[in-house]
Amino acid sequence: MSEFVFLYTTFPGEAAAARVARELVEAGLVACANIIPGMRSIYRYGDGVEEGQEVVVIFKLPAKAAEAAAGRLRALHPYETPVVAFLHVAPDAATAAWLREATG
Amino acid sequence: MSEFVFLYTTFPGEAAAARVARELVEAGLVACANIIPGMRSIYRYGDGVEEGQEVVVIFKLPAKAAEAAAGRLRALHPYETPVVAFLHVAPDAATAAWLREATG
Amino acid sequence: MSEFVFLYTTFPGEAAAARVARELVEAGLVACANIIPGMRSIYRYGDGVEEGQEVVVIFKLPAKAAEAAAGRLRALHPYETPVVAFLHVAPDAATAAWLREATG
Repeated sequence: MSEFVFLYTTFPGEAAAARVARELVEAGLVACANIIPGMRSIYRYGDGVEEGQEVVVIFKLPAKAAEAAAGRLRALHPYETPVVAFLHVAPDAATAAWLREATG
Repeated sequence: MSEFVFLYTTFPGEAAAARVARELVEAGLVACANIIPGMRSIYRYGDGVEEGQEVVVIFKLPAKAAEAAAGRLRALHPYETPVVAFLHVAPDAATAAWLREATG
Repeated sequence: MSEFVFLYTTFPGEAAAARVARELVEAGLVACANIIPGMRSIYRYGDGVEEGQEVVVIFKLPAKAAEAAAGRLRALHPYETPVVAFLHVAPDAATAAWLREATG
């Protein structure tokens, strides 16, 4: 895994997303959360296909905090099994410095 | 390619995106589609620069279904050559299990 | 780095994002910009946690233009140190051909 990652997840609404995001940032597990509202999700659920309104949340963090951040996210998330997907990212020097400092 | 990927594409509108997304989920080619409305695209088109309103769609799927999902997407998409871009993702165990089951 | 990347950044508003995006597309540094409005950012700032309304911008470009595009973005961006994060992408053949042609 690269030194930094994005953690992509979804929430049922902005309020829950903001509450959990604030806790992860305050805990120094992530540097920031980008909450994108108004997402429409179409997904397989058992034998059927369901739809729902959600928000996307993209967390930015060092890879070394990935497990701890995912664990806290799962503990705080309203879903029993939220989507947790990591994407490798290569930040520029200033972004990397900020990500380290924000989660130091 | 990692075991799982996101497929990033764009559509001219939410209705077309939802129709195609539902078909790919029902076919078991993708586990889900996240449709993000209200995107403004600024892009090179021939010698000029164009703008347009679109929606972003992020599909989540196993890499082994990538070619089949992309082929079906291109066949159903209203654009002649839609953007099809895969991103490697590393899901947590519960997300990986769901992605496998939803496209089993 | 793969042949193509997404550059993920954020702007304080859509107008500034569109202005800078248009300049990067016109300069042939990126093939396109996807501007996603209405994003709520929660982030570490010094000892505190701040919130703000932003827009997400996802630029699509060849990796060989990454440094030049990031440099121009930083020069034009209203923030002193904007987030600049690259993600590896694997486009399909038609998307790859367009990305090369648009930034040729």
